Amino acid sequence: MEAKALEQDPRFVEQVDLSEVYFMRFQPGDDLFTAVSEVCKEWGIERAVIVSGIGSLVDVSFVSPKEAIEIPVLKDKLNFVDQQGPFELLTLEGNVVPLVGEFGNMKEGDPVLHLHVTLATKEGEISGGHLVKATVFTTTELFLANVKNSRVKKKQSCITGLCEMRDDI
Amino acid sequence: MEAKALEQDPRFVEQVDLSEVYFMRFQPGDDLFTAVSEVCKEWGIERAVIVSGIGSLVDVSFVSPKEAIEIPVLKDKLNFVDQQGPFELLTLEGNVVPLVGEFGNMKEGDPVLHLHVTLATKEGEISGGHLVKATVFTTTELFLANVKNSRVKKKQSCITGLCEMRDDI
Amino acid sequence: MEAKALEQDPRFVEQVDLSEVYFMRFQPGDDLFTAVSEVCKEWGIERAVIVSGIGSLVDVSFVSPKEAIEIPVLKDKLNFVDQQGPFELLTLEGNVVPLVGEFGNMKEGDPVLHLHVTLATKEGEISGGHLVKATVFTTTELFLANVKNSRVKKKQSCITGLCEMRDDI
Repeated sequence: MEAKALEQDPRFVEQVDLSEVYFMRFQPGDDLFTAVSEVCKEWGIERAVIVSGIGSLVDVSFVSPKEAIEIPVLKDKLNFVDQQGPFELLTLEGNVVPLVGEFGNMKEGDPVLHLHVTLATKEGEISGGHLVKATVFTTTELFLANVKNSRVKKKQSCITGLCEMRDDI
Repeated sequence: MEAKALEQDPRFVEQVDLSEVYFMRFQPGDDLFTAVSEVCKEWGIERAVIVSGIGSLVDVSFVSPKEAIEIPVLKDKLNFVDQQGPFELLTLEGNVVPLVGEFGNMKEGDPVLHLHVTLATKEGEISGGHLVKATVFTTTELFLANVKNSRVKKKQSCITGLCEMRDDI
Repeated sequence: MEAKALEQDPRFVEQVDLSEVYFMRFQPGDDLFTAVSEVCKEWGIERAVIVSGIGSLVDVSFVSPKEAIEIPVLKDKLNFVDQQGPFELLTLEGNVVPLVGEFGNMKEGDPVLHLHVTLATKEGEISGGHLVKATVFTTTELFLANVKNSRVKKKQSCITGLCEMRDDI
């Protein structure tokens, strides 16, 4: 690893408050990204972390890194995978943090939903990745905590090329 | 997706209290479902969510959806998979919610344990699904939160055919 | 399963306090084990549990049980797997608990980091296991709770052969 020699984004560790937790079920046909965004907007949640999320999904797209990818990550080194399913949603991990500046088709202040999934197919084979699209199949049972006392935002990093967490901006 | 056109179960988002957390270790030979149920009963926990669960399992059964399955889900479109293991338990996600009415061999008021796992075999291959049976191999290290201030129950849904969360019953 | 007939380590269920949560991002090139250990040391955290962890990793090693392994687990029945990646880090689950006695190259009082991961490769294939080494690729976004009001420690168990949780020592 040569990465240790690279300049780094500023480091941070914040003590935060996750005491405000929301418990919900999403419905068949719901767009997962829209559903999470709407709950955040409706309840005034600027930053969130998923405590638990299970259910089932269909019509899923995710990205994964190609072999021999290096940082800064270039778009053509990402592999976009579309899978129809339906799948059992075994894990739904991730967070929501507001954006500084622009990234892809997102603009200043937009909530960045960073969601990683593992999915089970019929014989118990597993797929998964960094989620970019998903539709609820039968249900998604979600516990989402409001991340209070945080200053973290996301901004494109010249180190990684991706949208990274910062608490100094 | 035609699902958007379907009638839906009622939607809900609840603000809940997860401040009461139980930390435990299960032992070799423990039935995972029995062990979780007994802890809930002993500590007066009606609803629970898993904050973290890792360890190792043997003698596992889970279900996953077959291809081209549609809702409402019919039993013959589910695929039951038995795997002996032992496995590393990489993720144990899920919740416990009381039942309204009957579903399968469960009756009114029974705790519905909804548990999804990912499991590692010897070369790092992964399997997993909606768990229906599992025995602890060496350990299960579990953090389980009591879900307080919730009215959520589970009832068979005519939309999905499965046992779904409701907060209006 | 004959395990039920075995003598067992003492059982415990503790009510703990996870209200003190730390939110951090690790950087490209960080050693994941060192980074978690340093945060625990700096913030005076003796016991911890991961609430959420996603990101990407490279240069990963993990162990998984071989087929037909039995307890007590012998070192030659474990399979060490090295994978270069880079990988999407789909799930990072686990905990930190102080050691009693010695285990491997750890000594009395050392923090035992028990970390399980699932990782995605380029086509969405998944690998994973009980992590023993990993380097951060682009980021690791981590929510780590201080486990307060706990007496749990880890000690080598003559039942499993591994380092197991105890609250009576």
